[in-house]
Amino acid sequence: MTFVNVGTLGAVPGKRDELVAHLTARSDELADAGCLSYEVGVNDEQPDTVYVAEIWTSAAAHRDSLQLPGVQASIAAARPLLSGEMGGFRFDVVGSPLRD
Amino acid sequence: MTFVNVGTLGAVPGKRDELVAHLTARSDELADAGCLSYEVGVNDEQPDTVYVAEIWTSAAAHRDSLQLPGVQASIAAARPLLSGEMGGFRFDVVGSPLRD
Repeated sequence: MTFVNVGTLGAVPGKRDELVAHLTARSDELADAGCLSYEVGVNDEQPDTVYVAEIWTSAAAHRDSLQLPGVQASIAAARPLLSGEMGGFRFDVVGSPLRD
Repeated sequence: MTFVNVGTLGAVPGKRDELVAHLTARSDELADAGCLSYEVGVNDEQPDTVYVAEIWTSAAAHRDSLQLPGVQASIAAARPLLSGEMGGFRFDVVGSPLRD
């Protein structure tokens, strides 16, 4: 069942764009792991926050991806840019008005 | 600039699945208005909540869609199913690790 994970990542002040660059670095590993969409963005009303919205083939594909060596290395490298504030939610997709 | 809107909609207890059916009813109007993706789902840890994650061609396309007659009618019809609790966030997409 397709799975969505959306989140907010607090950045150390002044480090938002560096965190964005990090999260948008090309990764074929994610697609291979079952990531169907991974949008990264910002909202100028919250200048120290980075937003992500991910669609995965399943909750298990998302969970397993966190153990991939490339993903683990990426998380470790991003850690100094994070304030520690995090939010978001996740859900199992049951449909869309754009398809039958 | 591509725009993401994600949200949680509290349902009146027992009405979650009816609200899901409502939100997933096929709508070609949304695609015509610039909606690229509109995923609707649930999370059994929050049994009275419906989740949506939408991608639009722009923030303006999303905003303008709320005025479409079909969307207005849909919002009015869903209102009795809503508890009034809402959450979520929105952002401008700046990139994705899945594409250059």
